[in-house]
Amino acid sequence: MEKKVGEQYLFDFYGELLTQKQKQILEYYYDDDYSLAEIAEVMSVTRQGIFDVIKRSKAMMQVYEEKLGLINKFLKSQILLEKIQKDLSGLADRERDDTLKSELMVVVEKLKKVSEEN
Amino acid sequence: MEKKVGEQYLFDFYGELLTQKQKQILEYYYDDDYSLAEIAEVMSVTRQGIFDVIKRSKAMMQVYEEKLGLINKFLKSQILLEKIQKDLSGLADRERDDTLKSELMVVVEKLKKVSEEN
Repeated sequence: MEKKVGEQYLFDFYGELLTQKQKQILEYYYDDDYSLAEIAEVMSVTRQGIFDVIKRSKAMMQVYEEKLGLINKFLKSQILLEKIQKDLSGLADRERDDTLKSELMVVVEKLKKVSEEN
Repeated sequence: MEKKVGEQYLFDFYGELLTQKQKQILEYYYDDDYSLAEIAEVMSVTRQGIFDVIKRSKAMMQVYEEKLGLINKFLKSQILLEKIQKDLSGLADRERDDTLKSELMVVVEKLKKVSEEN
């Protein structure tokens, strides 16, 4: 089973909507990077059982993304926010008035906080 | 049945996770502001049936909010973004360099776009 780019996002955004058992298995898989065989061992389930849970969980999370589009929205707003941070940093860099320069840097820091909490 | 503040948000954020029938009824209720009796008539269902669907849908959406917290996150980031827009507008207002002033206003406009698409 191949971990594709974006699957970690699916789990980050929609993991809370899975059952406790699904969540536990996907935590081992995505967050701890366990192999299927390793998860099977700690959970006392067959490797095929783990494979099935992961496959079904991924399908569920993909449906949630199709309906809510949180990842899509998140990525778009991150791009916009980073662009704005860059614009403001550029303005601050070439600003000679030290007060204004530092005020602009404060705004850049606040924007970073918004990005991080996004 | 009383419409509480925040219910419209629940529907805006989680309406897509309801069934087609639930969604239709809540659209009449929240978006078109129909009464229960009016919805019952257009859907050819009893008023009690409509009441039950709305009650169950609200409970489902509340569970989603407890798990995903999208509304909570949205409101927090809107407050931060508005504060930043205000800071920047303030800087632009007292800026005498017209080029910088207009560059700051461009950034404010971009931030408004982020808020709106949030």
